Parts: sequence; structure tokens; C-alpha cells
Amino acid sequence: MSTIEKRLTTLNIELPKPATPVANYLPSIKTNNFLIISGQLPFINGKLFATGKLGGEVNIPTGQQAARYCMINILAQAKAAIGQLDAISKLIRLGGFIASTPEFTQQAIVMNGASDLAIEAFGNKGRHARSAFGVASLPMDACIEIEAWFELK
Amino acid sequence: MSTIEKRLTTLNIELPKPATPVANYLPSIKTNNFLIISGQLPFINGKLFATGKLGGEVNIPTGQQAARYCMINILAQAKAAIGQLDAISKLIRLGGFIASTPEFTQQAIVMNGASDLAIEAFGNKGRHARSAFGVASLPMDACIEIEAWFELK
Amino acid sequence: MSTIEKRLTTLNIELPKPATPVANYLPSIKTNNFLIISGQLPFINGKLFATGKLGGEVNIPTGQQAARYCMINILAQAKAAIGQLDAISKLIRLGGFIASTPEFTQQAIVMNGASDLAIEAFGNKGRHARSAFGVASLPMDACIEIEAWFELK
Repeated sequence: MSTIEKRLTTLNIELPKPATPVANYLPSIKTNNFLIISGQLPFINGKLFATGKLGGEVNIPTGQQAARYCMINILAQAKAAIGQLDAISKLIRLGGFIASTPEFTQQAIVMNGASDLAIEAFGNKGRHARSAFGVASLPMDACIEIEAWFELK
Repeated sequence: MSTIEKRLTTLNIELPKPATPVANYLPSIKTNNFLIISGQLPFINGKLFATGKLGGEVNIPTGQQAARYCMINILAQAKAAIGQLDAISKLIRLGGFIASTPEFTQQAIVMNGASDLAIEAFGNKGRHARSAFGVASLPMDACIEIEAWFELK
Repeated sequence: MSTIEKRLTTLNIELPKPATPVANYLPSIKTNNFLIISGQLPFINGKLFATGKLGGEVNIPTGQQAARYCMINILAQAKAAIGQLDAISKLIRLGGFIASTPEFTQQAIVMNGASDLAIEAFGNKGRHARSAFGVASLPMDACIEIEAWFELK
């Protein structure tokens, strides 16, 4: 088991079978020494953890937990793509798309649910650049979608 | 004529004169072995194929066709940038921004209009990572905007 | 003082102390010869220059000025990351997220507030690819957020 996966075990996180893309695209792609993960939804056990909008039926703690599940799915896709997470030299960037009512302005704190886990898992190599914003709606009414770029060793 | 362009001809697609950017930016840029295409709108013959929102006045088949036109414009920009499409080693990523009502949640199927064409044109080298989400509104009231990253040979 | 910073002085622009990220992420990251700047909000002197939405309480000239402040903050982050702006070989891409009402469709002209400044500061090396779209809402109710990718020498 790799160092990163041991750390995930300590965090009580078991990487799921990576989700099949919901349409005609790849879950991830490698180019040069980059690994790009397609936007991941907060699936857990094949179902969305939360649907609807922040500022509406989804509250902030639920949104943060959903962000965490997106990050777990990102890690599952990364492992499926490269075999083991220790081949990652660092997380470069997260893009966070948070289904929001026009009034909701706490996207940053919701997105921390993903960023915090990245840092718990990778330590300083999990510290990343990020953009997060409120979107009108998401595929399958998911409350959040997150994409990622990793740098590989 | 390049292999890719022959395939486009088979698909009855003639690449248009690439659209001039609607503001002060470049339609594409090369960096290292990457070619990045700015967000393309569904222009055809100088006019937007469809305006308005998915979930509102734009239905799913129209949105899919609009996504296909965005992809055609992406290919036209790529050809203008690098001379011939065979210089592309693969499509890396599409970003799809779909003008949506808050209730619309079928962005993935709309975006397939672009992804399907990429794969028809490039075969396995057209298979890509992707993020798609619903945005509040788009420049010129376009119903969709798509950006692309290619890897060059 | 670097060439770029001299040009900024001519434009009467003094780079501010770069803003601390509003949550758990890095303001920028280097990978290979790329410098990625996290989404920047239109902070000036520690406060947001404008909050609310384009098409609502924020008019186009205010949005353009806010876009310009985002770009100034991007430059401040870049300088903090790499020491001096002359280490940049070119600006590659801007992503512009404009808080918009569903009816607002002038995102491109708003975003020019950032693009124009990039070109004023860097000349032809400031000419970039770009995607801009209307988002439902932004962190802290900012009216615009802009992210950037630079290529380094």
C-alpha cells in the first residue's frame, strides 16, 4: 500500500470503485507529466450524496461533505489512471463548481471540504491553486462538481 | 488534405473561416506542446445557431447541435493556429459552459454533441477529459460555450 | 525595477500586497514552466471594489473596473510567486467568472477590463486565450473572479 493510501486508511477513507463517466468522455487523461481528472460529482455507493443548491435545500455542512466525496472520487480516478497515488508529485489545481442560488456567497467554505482532504491526504504536496464559483445548475442536479490537475513524478 | 480533414469531409463537415474573437483576446494560444482554444460560441455563417437557455427556450436536441457547432469552431480555430489538424496528437480536455435555468440538469447529454464529434473526427485520440456545468448566462446570449486543450505532436 | 513593473508605473499602477486566499488553498502554484494563479477577486485596499451582479446592481463600467482590479491582483500574486514579472514569457489564458443575472449577456466587454490591462502591461506577450461566462454567484458576493495561467521563461 502506498504512503498516501496508508494515510487515507488512517483517515478512515476507502477509495471506491471509480465512477463511470455520466456521458461520452474519459474520467481522466494523462498529458506530459500531468494527470487531469474530469469533473467529479459527489457519488457515494453509486448515488449522489446530495442534490439541489447551496442557499436552497443544501446547507453548508452538507455541501462541505459533498465536496469531500468529490475529492474522494478524484483520488479514486487518479489511482485507477496511474496505479498508485504515490506517483503524484503534487496537486496543482482544483476547479469547484457549486450549484448555488443567486444569493449564496459561501462557495469558498464549501469548497474547503475538498481542499482540506487533499491536504490531509498529501500533506504539503496537496496544497493547490483553486477557483470556485456558483453555477446555475449541475448534471443530475448534483450540488457540487470538482475537477483536478495533478503533476506526476 | 489531412487524415482528420478527410474524416470531417466524410461527416459532411466543412470547417468554416474561424470566428474573430468577440472581444480583446486571442482565439487560441500555443504553449509548450499544448494548443489552447478560447471559449467558442455556436456560430454558423456568422450568426449564433441558438440563443437562450437550456431548460427555457432551448431544447436538448438544439443544445446538442449547438455543442456540435462549438466543436466545429474549435476545430476551425485549431486548423488556423497550426495549419493542419494532423499535428494534433490528442484532445485533452473540453470545458462546457451551458446556459441553464436553475432547474435544468441535463448538461452532460447536451455536451455530448461536442464530445461525440471530437471522437468521430479523431477516433480514440479524440477521447478527452471534460467538465460541464450550467452557467447563469453567456456572452451574446449564446446557449453554450466550449473551450478546448489539445496536445500537439 | 523590471520592464513590466516600469510599464505598470507608467500606467499609474502600484502592485498591492497580494491578497491572502479566502480559504484553504494557495494563491498560486508553479508546475513545469507554468505559473497558475488562483481565482482572484476585485480586492482593493483589503475590500471588494464591487459586490452584486452584472445586470443587477453592478453596471458595465463598474464591472470592467472590477475586472481590472482582478488583473492587478493576479499580477501581484505573480510577482509574489516568482520575484519579478519579467520572468514571465507570456500570459496564456484567463478564465473570467462574472456574477450575472440570467438576462446579462455582456460578459465579454466586462472581461476586457482585465484583458486590456494584461496587454497594456505585457504588450504582445499579454495577448491570451480566454473563456468568460456568467456565474450564479461568487464568494463574498464579488461581482467577478478571474484566474490566470502564465508561461515562464
